[in-house]
Amino acid sequence: MKIPSLILKQLYTMGSLENVPGGVRFNLKNRLSDATVTAVSGFAIDGCKLPLADVTLDIGGEVLAAGEVTTARPIALPLRRQMTVICRGQRLELGKHTVGIEFEAAPFGKLAFEVSDAIREHADHRLTVPCDKENNYNPEIIRARQEFVQTMTGASLEHVARYSFDPERTKGNIENFTGVAQIPIGFAGPIRIHGEHAQGDFLIPLATTEGTLVASYNRGMKVLNLSGGVTCTVSDDRMQRAPVFVFDSAREARAFRDWVAANMDSIREAAEATSSVAKLLDIDIILSNKFAYLRFNYATGDAAGQNMVGRATFAACSWMLDRLDTVRSFFLESNLATDKKHSQINMMRTRGKRVTAEAVVQRDVLVQQMRVEPEKLNYHMQIANVGAFLSGANNNGAHSPNGITAMFIATGQDVANVAESSSGILYTEITPEGNIYISLTIPSLIVATHGGGTGLATQRECLEVLGCLGRNKVRKLAEIVAGVALAGEVSLGAAISSLDWVSSHERYGRNR
Amino acid sequence: MKIPSLILKQLYTMGSLENVPGGVRFNLKNRLSDATVTAVSGFAIDGCKLPLADVTLDIGGEVLAAGEVTTARPIALPLRRQMTVICRGQRLELGKHTVGIEFEAAPFGKLAFEVSDAIREHADHRLTVPCDKENNYNPEIIRARQEFVQTMTGASLEHVARYSFDPERTKGNIENFTGVAQIPIGFAGPIRIHGEHAQGDFLIPLATTEGTLVASYNRGMKVLNLSGGVTCTVSDDRMQRAPVFVFDSAREARAFRDWVAANMDSIREAAEATSSVAKLLDIDIILSNKFAYLRFNYATGDAAGQNMVGRATFAACSWMLDRLDTVRSFFLESNLATDKKHSQINMMRTRGKRVTAEAVVQRDVLVQQMRVEPEKLNYHMQIANVGAFLSGANNNGAHSPNGITAMFIATGQDVANVAESSSGILYTEITPEGNIYISLTIPSLIVATHGGGTGLATQRECLEVLGCLGRNKVRKLAEIVAGVALAGEVSLGAAISSLDWVSSHERYGRNR
Amino acid sequence: MKIPSLILKQLYTMGSLENVPGGVRFNLKNRLSDATVTAVSGFAIDGCKLPLADVTLDIGGEVLAAGEVTTARPIALPLRRQMTVICRGQRLELGKHTVGIEFEAAPFGKLAFEVSDAIREHADHRLTVPCDKENNYNPEIIRARQEFVQTMTGASLEHVARYSFDPERTKGNIENFTGVAQIPIGFAGPIRIHGEHAQGDFLIPLATTEGTLVASYNRGMKVLNLSGGVTCTVSDDRMQRAPVFVFDSAREARAFRDWVAANMDSIREAAEATSSVAKLLDIDIILSNKFAYLRFNYATGDAAGQNMVGRATFAACSWMLDRLDTVRSFFLESNLATDKKHSQINMMRTRGKRVTAEAVVQRDVLVQQMRVEPEKLNYHMQIANVGAFLSGANNNGAHSPNGITAMFIATGQDVANVAESSSGILYTEITPEGNIYISLTIPSLIVATHGGGTGLATQRECLEVLGCLGRNKVRKLAEIVAGVALAGEVSLGAAISSLDWVSSHERYGRNR
Amino acid sequence: MKIPSLILKQLYTMGSLENVPGGVRFNLKNRLSDATVTAVSGFAIDGCKLPLADVTLDIGGEVLAAGEVTTARPIALPLRRQMTVICRGQRLELGKHTVGIEFEAAPFGKLAFEVSDAIREHADHRLTVPCDKENNYNPEIIRARQEFVQTMTGASLEHVARYSFDPERTKGNIENFTGVAQIPIGFAGPIRIHGEHAQGDFLIPLATTEGTLVASYNRGMKVLNLSGGVTCTVSDDRMQRAPVFVFDSAREARAFRDWVAANMDSIREAAEATSSVAKLLDIDIILSNKFAYLRFNYATGDAAGQNMVGRATFAACSWMLDRLDTVRSFFLESNLATDKKHSQINMMRTRGKRVTAEAVVQRDVLVQQMRVEPEKLNYHMQIANVGAFLSGANNNGAHSPNGITAMFIATGQDVANVAESSSGILYTEITPEGNIYISLTIPSLIVATHGGGTGLATQRECLEVLGCLGRNKVRKLAEIVAGVALAGEVSLGAAISSLDWVSSHERYGRNR
Repeated sequence: MKIPSLILKQLYTMGSLENVPGGVRFNLKNRLSDATVTAVSGFAIDGCKLPLADVTLDIGGEVLAAGEVTTARPIALPLRRQMTVICRGQRLELGKHTVGIEFEAAPFGKLAFEVSDAIREHADHRLTVPCDKENNYNPEIIRARQEFVQTMTGASLEHVARYSFDPERTKGNIENFTGVAQIPIGFAGPIRIHGEHAQGDFLIPLATTEGTLVASYNRGMKVLNLSGGVTCTVSDDRMQRAPVFVFDSAREARAFRDWVAANMDSIREAAEATSSVAKLLDIDIILSNKFAYLRFNYATGDAAGQNMVGRATFAACSWMLDRLDTVRSFFLESNLATDKKHSQINMMRTRGKRVTAEAVVQRDVLVQQMRVEPEKLNYHMQIANVGAFLSGANNNGAHSPNGITAMFIATGQDVANVAESSSGILYTEITPEGNIYISLTIPSLIVATHGGGTGLATQRECLEVLGCLGRNKVRKLAEIVAGVALAGEVSLGAAISSLDWVSSHERYGRNR
Repeated sequence: MKIPSLILKQLYTMGSLENVPGGVRFNLKNRLSDATVTAVSGFAIDGCKLPLADVTLDIGGEVLAAGEVTTARPIALPLRRQMTVICRGQRLELGKHTVGIEFEAAPFGKLAFEVSDAIREHADHRLTVPCDKENNYNPEIIRARQEFVQTMTGASLEHVARYSFDPERTKGNIENFTGVAQIPIGFAGPIRIHGEHAQGDFLIPLATTEGTLVASYNRGMKVLNLSGGVTCTVSDDRMQRAPVFVFDSAREARAFRDWVAANMDSIREAAEATSSVAKLLDIDIILSNKFAYLRFNYATGDAAGQNMVGRATFAACSWMLDRLDTVRSFFLESNLATDKKHSQINMMRTRGKRVTAEAVVQRDVLVQQMRVEPEKLNYHMQIANVGAFLSGANNNGAHSPNGITAMFIATGQDVANVAESSSGILYTEITPEGNIYISLTIPSLIVATHGGGTGLATQRECLEVLGCLGRNKVRKLAEIVAGVALAGEVSLGAAISSLDWVSSHERYGRNR
Repeated sequence: MKIPSLILKQLYTMGSLENVPGGVRFNLKNRLSDATVTAVSGFAIDGCKLPLADVTLDIGGEVLAAGEVTTARPIALPLRRQMTVICRGQRLELGKHTVGIEFEAAPFGKLAFEVSDAIREHADHRLTVPCDKENNYNPEIIRARQEFVQTMTGASLEHVARYSFDPERTKGNIENFTGVAQIPIGFAGPIRIHGEHAQGDFLIPLATTEGTLVASYNRGMKVLNLSGGVTCTVSDDRMQRAPVFVFDSAREARAFRDWVAANMDSIREAAEATSSVAKLLDIDIILSNKFAYLRFNYATGDAAGQNMVGRATFAACSWMLDRLDTVRSFFLESNLATDKKHSQINMMRTRGKRVTAEAVVQRDVLVQQMRVEPEKLNYHMQIANVGAFLSGANNNGAHSPNGITAMFIATGQDVANVAESSSGILYTEITPEGNIYISLTIPSLIVATHGGGTGLATQRECLEVLGCLGRNKVRKLAEIVAGVALAGEVSLGAAISSLDWVSSHERYGRNR
Repeated sequence: MKIPSLILKQLYTMGSLENVPGGVRFNLKNRLSDATVTAVSGFAIDGCKLPLADVTLDIGGEVLAAGEVTTARPIALPLRRQMTVICRGQRLELGKHTVGIEFEAAPFGKLAFEVSDAIREHADHRLTVPCDKENNYNPEIIRARQEFVQTMTGASLEHVARYSFDPERTKGNIENFTGVAQIPIGFAGPIRIHGEHAQGDFLIPLATTEGTLVASYNRGMKVLNLSGGVTCTVSDDRMQRAPVFVFDSAREARAFRDWVAANMDSIREAAEATSSVAKLLDIDIILSNKFAYLRFNYATGDAAGQNMVGRATFAACSWMLDRLDTVRSFFLESNLATDKKHSQINMMRTRGKRVTAEAVVQRDVLVQQMRVEPEKLNYHMQIANVGAFLSGANNNGAHSPNGITAMFIATGQDVANVAESSSGILYTEITPEGNIYISLTIPSLIVATHGGGTGLATQRECLEVLGCLGRNKVRKLAEIVAGVALAGEVSLGAAISSLDWVSSHERYGRNR
């Protein structure tokens, strides 16, 4: 098994290069997979070979000279194990330096690569937030941080400090945990959903601080329920990372595109080796100038998957870069993914889930509940369509991000994905019976039922309320979110059409 | 003082029309300003006049016949007071009905208007969330809701139910309050900001569930600090509501545009009468087909202001509609505002705050801290620019919504405004000294230090940490948010450019 | 061979249904392929069967009763042959009517279909342009038109009437030919192009009425030549038609998408049966609401291909519609093609040719010829990039449509395709040697060397000047156009950067 | 009168600096207004003062020493007069050089400025198109060019050479005039237009090479005529130039914005001094990063006005730059104008004419003429709207650029402006009577009846056909173009809706 060189570079942990008394020290960390080092054959700093005798390795407390490593006395280097290297007799200038290393490791054979790090001068002498590298989630350090903040700013953290769970649970979710934001949750619904995954009546937890939001969604749900419920369909599901490759010319970039197509199986294999979940579906390639932009599309199971597709794409690119000598530069992201952004490419080619909620709202229900005729609502839609076209908006509907955001906060989603998830395509049509067909397609709804914040205390409870805990629930969640969003469109759309809109804000909202 | 007819209609509280034994009942609520009713001269249902003798009024418990109201025996009707009207001997069919009312009220003189409401048949017989119309925030009803949710779904709300504040504080922020989402807060910084309002070092509360976010922003802040800090400038500040007026023809729409320009002072007066804070700056008018789209731009003080500009615009439109007979249809919103959406009009003409953060990052700081040269970061920026142009993205930077969202959650902002606030224009340039000038303009950052969720328990504490409690702090907050966002751009931009990006996710994030 | 029913409908020529003395008359035209009718078995109008005895057929002058057609006495119906049908004893009301027809034809077997047309009342009694249905391009009718125009408007057509070619050549290019627009042609260049198809020095015919255009492009060409010429690469080539299929629900639309994927071979076969040139490359499918938008992508040889891909897509859709019973509505175009429009989908996924022109402009050439340093030009580009991002422009360069339009007019292109062809992505970069790499990608350049106006008199001569007459020249033409466009970017970009821009307009242009 | 320094620089004609035997020669041209030079007080090259005795001036053949110019012996320097300066005893290196000059001129007083030009080495040794600097439009040089092209390429220019007008007429419209493109013109209509400027029936000259275009527009006109004609309204009229000013920081850029507002009257005066026609309406200012983008909006009378607004904006910027010391860089265009490009800013804020065409098409006319019911056409529109939203198109209609382009070519417009003029907003609505209201707004239609190609031979005739020759006709032309474009939307929209679309192409177009 040949290891891509870019991945080899990743073995080296950034930021640890430093001058120590008597030499230079740095760390290497195995990020790849379990290995056994059977020989260390060379070390070089900035191109100058070092005598192996001057190099000492420290692996988890066991210290030995570089030359002592042999097949007979191998070093076990399991995944994520770190090795500290000390090169005696060296002293490095400030700035960047390159360290070359050659060794043999089973099952990989001979490995050789260069990595770089910097010797830093600058220290940030300002006070910094207390941090315990070993045990950063225990009560003492958390309390130290709270006190630090209170002392430095004069503010009280009385409520921020009142969380109900074990802070250790936030490991992997936040650094420097100091407390919590308490966001009010109200429940709307139940809403009747006819999905392929979500079927039945669902109570909807909405975490928000905006008055009228819960009431407005609740009202829309009532209208949908009285009209028979909402039908939800996930039509696509794909998560992206979009690296860019720079060439000498457009012609080289075009040749690369064809090379990628011809090597698709191997690229997929390299990508998928990094995860048991991520499946590479296809790659959109856009050529411009001397650049080849690749948008890798993955299925990511129950996770939103941004991290796993980053790793997978990195591995795939490493594989590719090892086989190409025409690439002049490479970046793992290029603004085609487009993470945490609205984009037309998301609109057309999906990011996360592409999901549609549909309902036929009965005329008499709409009139009696919302005091508006279907024709009026439909008319507003046509005019709002022109409005969205003129303003260059990413959503021709009323306010789908309101419900989406409130559900995202409640259920532990990455709330910054509201940027992508805010896009929407709303469509209405009067049926021959005089009712109104209304549907909302969210082309880039990013949700997860695994990973990220979904396992945290209140978030997990809200997912449980929705019946979305456990495996294979992510499309169920997507369906529910879409159904809720449609309820909000019915409610606010009807309110605007019937002129009640301001007054309902007035009734529930806090006035100034 | 003549009252616009649309505003008169708003006096009538929607949704309360019903058949009661012996007649019909409905409510009227004074939403305008204090008044004294000195005569009730006529009531009609669906165009048929009612004998005044059959009409009884109930104002806060005091009951009298409609005909009894005279100058000698007036009814006090202060702002927000509700009057219940009972018309004996009537019975209405299902569906919409119109009620006409004429009366005299000081200081307005004679008022006459029609309102409509519907008699409803449909009841949503599904179980609904327990609700107490009188006292919906007391412990009993909250506990009832928690039990309802737990019973209906089988889920536990153990942590959701663990909030540390008096639920009454959430009145106006949420309906059906049942508990809280607890979102972890970590602190980054301090970050040194040179604003016009924010000056000094700020600790930044970030509420997020995404691993590496706090660490990444912290790293960017260190780089900025070592380079002398970040300069922040608010260059515009305006909030919108965008009604649309429909005419018979483009020519009528054009005449209307000119009429609006000629009557700008009166329109401003009508708008500003509704609030002591909102100031109407100007109106963008876009004509298309037979429609006139008006984008009202307001200054809204410390509030984000969506509600106040809705009311103000509604009042202004009412004034206008009373003076025009060419308008065929009117809607208070038309997708030009563009609330909870990205749009090109926001990008160009601002929504909320237009704020820029700038820094010159020193070459040696960047190399030592981020292991990347300024030229590499700048090169990535050029290529990412092309990427954003190709993908039609609303942000050519890396991930500004990450920091923005985390601060929004922490400080009680309307988080759905991440849709607008996700736009960004990032620009880099190598200075003659070989450093890198980097700046981020956020054209539609929507923040508040008053109203919405800013007064809630943890939210208020986080605002206090930032020194953003009290009057005239909203631009200070905008400056801080922009500075933080730029720190994130430096951090992730440098990581992508130096290839460390995946590995830092790997180190801090939860792996699958 | 089963013929799709939609195609059968196309056999019927629209617009010819009329009441004639003694009956009703209409035409059928064979648009499919050569056939021999061996039996006519039924005719019906609005669902009522007609006695065959009352039906007479007239094929190119040969008249016979419907019942007389037999295997023994077949009717030859070659492609494009028209048959007139007279149904005696009928008289139709104004408005739409349906005609059903059943017959047998070798090699197709039994065919049955319905078509509809309308009986019209409205005659446009205004004077209309003289027209001779049989011989509309001969001198007499052309002169009659010229006189009609001159008489009706009082204008002289002295110069419009002065064309140098046989008007018969314009058949298929224009209806009601009356004369010509004479557009001045100037030559720029030669420009040295290193394409895969265009290699060498090319003189460029530019048809324009805008002063400075030829001079400006000429100046850019000189700069490119002195820097070694321009390298051009066609990286994609695809023409579209984008029908939409309407379903009852999003789920049906999704099922349709999967069905299309499963039947791709048959769909391709049906599409390609209509042309010896068009090749169906792939279909982009975008689902939204209950709609499935299909963007058919074709290779179209030397033609621009809009017509051939329309026919091919129509045939493919016919094949599909015959096999599906879930489609509720169908339109052959849906604004995803996007013919005669700029669009982000063109930008990302190409329309016509995707072509890139690249050059490294030497520093000393730029300074001496354009009085500007590479850094200044590059700086302007960065700032213009931000400008294009803010304005939502479809081109971040200076003015590529100028040269493109002038070449389109000169060489007989469909000039309205400037709408698509106006998009551009310009990129500059300072090389390590201090020169400037500049490249322009035109993502949707629509050019042809066959069909449309390419065969007309002056147009053909201009193509000959470019060496683009004959087969397989269309990519050569695309390369030349791109090279010329880049010359214009160098010229105007440098002029703006060096402040000479206004003055060059002043020197050459007509002043007011 | 103080003259802005940037304008002074423009006095110097670019490109003429050269070493001649015995010294250095260059030209100065008066581009400003009539002047009388009464003293020449200093000359410097690259900062070194020259002895005035070594400087000789040559003004239209009259040669005198620099020192000889006095009030008693002044030099008349009328507008556009050129002066050649010879500096004896100098010899310049290759590359850029600066020439400083000081003199006194009535009525301006003392003038001092620096200009720069380059000494060039590079000669383009390739053959170039023959050119006669003095007399470039006479028959001999034209014939020489024709022969050059024919010889160099082997192509015949038989038809290109057959123009019917005096080539001198093309001065200011084209450089290197060599012949003409002959584009077929067909006439459609008449079309009945109810404009404010265009009233009555108009015959429409369409210059195109695309079969079916004239027939399709003719068909649409018939439908419009039978429905009572088309109503056209110009609702805005403004032409742009958009310079960008670069500052040290966003705060400086913001201060500049406020300074511009405060100095608007003077800026307008400076701008309008350059033209008797251009009126500065207002300036849109967009701030981003450290840049201030200014979009100057002008009324330009009968001209399209791109050149005049360029000059006016240049003058205004010169005035501004002379008064500011915070500007670090300045470019006269920044991609906000957005000349020759589609943009969202054009869509919202107009470029050229914003014009709307409207009609109510009668149900029976539509059915009888186009075989389609209004509801079907309206339904297609709704679905095409979603299509345009998904594809990111700049036009939600069918093909307005077809008719626009054909009229542009016929009437001498700058055809490259199809890029802007291709945008459109189409809207349809079923009326209570069952007819269909259809309207098209073209937000950035760029037309002229004066300047550019409008005075050329065939172009002028076509304008005469439309009654658009003479003063104050440009809005009339805009109305006609919009009416024609709407006819095309009716025709193609109905054809797509009724499925006849391909067949009509088939009937008229050239098949392959």
